[in-house]
Amino acid sequence: MQQFTCVQDVSSPMELVRSALSLKRQKFHSSMGEGKTLGLLFFNPSLRTRISTQKAAKNLGMDVLTINCHSETWAIEMEDGVVMSGNSVEHIKEAGQVLSQYFDVIGIRTFASLTDRQQDYSESILHQFIENTSIPVVSLETATLHPLQSLADLMTIEEHKLQAKPRIVLTWAPHVNPLSQAVANSLIDWIKITDFDFVIARPDKYRLSEFYEDRIPTFTDQDKALTAADFVYVKNWSSYENYGSIESKFPNWTVTAQKMNLTNSGKVMHCLPVRRNVVITDEVLDSSASLVIEQSNNRTYAAQAVLMEILRSSSNS
Amino acid sequence: MQQFTCVQDVSSPMELVRSALSLKRQKFHSSMGEGKTLGLLFFNPSLRTRISTQKAAKNLGMDVLTINCHSETWAIEMEDGVVMSGNSVEHIKEAGQVLSQYFDVIGIRTFASLTDRQQDYSESILHQFIENTSIPVVSLETATLHPLQSLADLMTIEEHKLQAKPRIVLTWAPHVNPLSQAVANSLIDWIKITDFDFVIARPDKYRLSEFYEDRIPTFTDQDKALTAADFVYVKNWSSYENYGSIESKFPNWTVTAQKMNLTNSGKVMHCLPVRRNVVITDEVLDSSASLVIEQSNNRTYAAQAVLMEILRSSSNS
Amino acid sequence: MQQFTCVQDVSSPMELVRSALSLKRQKFHSSMGEGKTLGLLFFNPSLRTRISTQKAAKNLGMDVLTINCHSETWAIEMEDGVVMSGNSVEHIKEAGQVLSQYFDVIGIRTFASLTDRQQDYSESILHQFIENTSIPVVSLETATLHPLQSLADLMTIEEHKLQAKPRIVLTWAPHVNPLSQAVANSLIDWIKITDFDFVIARPDKYRLSEFYEDRIPTFTDQDKALTAADFVYVKNWSSYENYGSIESKFPNWTVTAQKMNLTNSGKVMHCLPVRRNVVITDEVLDSSASLVIEQSNNRTYAAQAVLMEILRSSSNS
Repeated sequence: MQQFTCVQDVSSPMELVRSALSLKRQKFHSSMGEGKTLGLLFFNPSLRTRISTQKAAKNLGMDVLTINCHSETWAIEMEDGVVMSGNSVEHIKEAGQVLSQYFDVIGIRTFASLTDRQQDYSESILHQFIENTSIPVVSLETATLHPLQSLADLMTIEEHKLQAKPRIVLTWAPHVNPLSQAVANSLIDWIKITDFDFVIARPDKYRLSEFYEDRIPTFTDQDKALTAADFVYVKNWSSYENYGSIESKFPNWTVTAQKMNLTNSGKVMHCLPVRRNVVITDEVLDSSASLVIEQSNNRTYAAQAVLMEILRSSSNS
Repeated sequence: MQQFTCVQDVSSPMELVRSALSLKRQKFHSSMGEGKTLGLLFFNPSLRTRISTQKAAKNLGMDVLTINCHSETWAIEMEDGVVMSGNSVEHIKEAGQVLSQYFDVIGIRTFASLTDRQQDYSESILHQFIENTSIPVVSLETATLHPLQSLADLMTIEEHKLQAKPRIVLTWAPHVNPLSQAVANSLIDWIKITDFDFVIARPDKYRLSEFYEDRIPTFTDQDKALTAADFVYVKNWSSYENYGSIESKFPNWTVTAQKMNLTNSGKVMHCLPVRRNVVITDEVLDSSASLVIEQSNNRTYAAQAVLMEILRSSSNS
Repeated sequence: MQQFTCVQDVSSPMELVRSALSLKRQKFHSSMGEGKTLGLLFFNPSLRTRISTQKAAKNLGMDVLTINCHSETWAIEMEDGVVMSGNSVEHIKEAGQVLSQYFDVIGIRTFASLTDRQQDYSESILHQFIENTSIPVVSLETATLHPLQSLADLMTIEEHKLQAKPRIVLTWAPHVNPLSQAVANSLIDWIKITDFDFVIARPDKYRLSEFYEDRIPTFTDQDKALTAADFVYVKNWSSYENYGSIESKFPNWTVTAQKMNLTNSGKVMHCLPVRRNVVITDEVLDSSASLVIEQSNNRTYAAQAVLMEILRSSSNS
């Protein structure tokens, strides 16, 4: 694996899921990363990703250097050919090459602008980093995708599914702030490699991009979608069409115990952080149906499996 | 030891003091923490605690992950049952369980609001963390107590006392900002386990809570209290009664060389940071009577002794 | 070596250059720093220095603790004898002694005020740290000098020079913000120990201090200076005379491909970060003449060589 930015970067995603689950069972530590340095660049706050990725790297014996881009370093210019007489102090061309010398692998966390859809969906910051670095790049969530989360999500489903082809419902839920579509897009992308029975529930105003919704059954009636679900993946996102806006809050889309009663004793999933009683009620989150804590636990082993693949590839090359 | 949040958590506090002093003499390093991760959560700035605790953990071979809560992660909701439609993004219920999976031991630094006495003295943030985590919690100072400081203070007294039962005076001193009562409360709590001759000097307006002052001789005449003191522990705190306010600055309570002349060649202690010539004069701090630097040195070994006890307990359980 | 704050601290600077180059060739790792802690104090943002110094320390087996002074700790008072009733919370006298107990070596990054020339050129913050610590101090750039950068620069020249005494031109270039004279001063200081053919090009309004320009040929005609140059070191600085101001932007001093044609197939150097098309054009930075990425790579080995010297001296003492 040369980089990890989306499911398409992985030759066999289900094998990666199984490898991560096996690392978890073995509490696997190794020295294969000794003498290697992982650099983590955060352009915005993070709790789970920051800690689980650091822990994964340390489990492999790697050194980790974490950088909070805005407070600790300079603003980075991403545009080509620009006269840098504004606020940005260093161009990605230099920053990328410089970091490639200091690190062996680089993880990058960027965020959707939610104002310029074309720019967000072109993943220009991620691609500028990839173009200007000569070391493997790992996405720690970008404008439109969150592959480490999806890998941990598939691990969690594998651990808890009771039949070969469980019914999985990705349902939109309300939120007070406009959020990106990254977790939803990425989950769809990863579920597509399985033969699970997968559907999306969301108000008409919260359609995702055609690229991701393509060939997935979608419902605008949440109750109907939830019927007989084995897993309910809850997530808010802001409008794709009227990009980044909150069209309507749809408070009746909050996932409640009553709605969970429609499912096939379904499990509840969410990537966290979750706003209680806005996205999902206390009753559901505090019930045994909730897998949200396990999902976050699996983030460590997801990151560890990815880093192992990358270290293996780079030692072979 | 299952947790370290106050002297009552320690089965034999004086044994812990002696164990910490022995670690200091031996410059003890160990690999007993190998493969274990200490998470440090800071809700406010820190110099000594941050560095000495990290160093203590590394002396034991532990990995340390430090998080600056406000700048690097999400705001955490502490109230139960709330509809999270405000500023906080993640509930302590999730955050606590998630962190318990990533860390083996967690250290938490919180701060007094100084506006709501009941909330501060209920230590609600600390207790929310304890309730929602399944790993040992170490206080790095909370709203009303600072046990790692007190442990280092007792170490310092043990090293410098010239008789079995020295006279120790905790004296209030002026400051420009309202500070918490944590260091003072905690010192009292720890000194109570000894048979030292201990008194408190403070203006009537700066009485501490009855719970802590109980059975301790108190003076409103600083000079009288200082007479024949072997150790003078200087510390400012804001009003307990008119909670968090600065009632009066009492500039004549600054500890000067003249006042130190009243003592029995007494030593001066302070937890640092200290505002020179407001709390204590240059002349005193720069004299051989000052133990403030040694106190901060002892913080490393205090933290190391506590972490060792905790690692030992968790490996036995 | 007891400290590293300027070229005068180094007994044999060219030997240090050769030692650093040899570390680079060998990809040298060692455990000579095991059990030793390097503390890094940043009073302002940094990318290269932060990462390369951490990496250098880890290559030697040292633990590294990095502190962002303003966001993570207290404001430090530098004045002697002051009544600390203002914003600063801790005096350098305490902070310095405390840190000396926690760390074995300390690195400090300060910045020029650019408002008070006398204070900047007295390097008062650096000297306060040196006076109040009892461990070796390494400059990570101070108000008027940047010796780790200069050491890396000399390494880069050694690697790329085609004759024994290359012609090196330090040329001023435009910038949008007022920058310090540290990199320029420091380069001059280090080049003076060589017998290279060294000249300075800068508008009359951007004369450096007499102390540094002393005995160096200076040109106010950039083209004339560049003629037959083997290395062109480009750097902006603000006015020394009208201290810290931008007297005029001189846009025709931007280093372009046309100007590089005047040189002897000269190489271009810059300490980074560089504002493209303001200081140097894209065409030059993207050409094979540019050594800027190599300079930043050499920072790791420069820091490693310095730390090795310091560890060696302190183990001998």
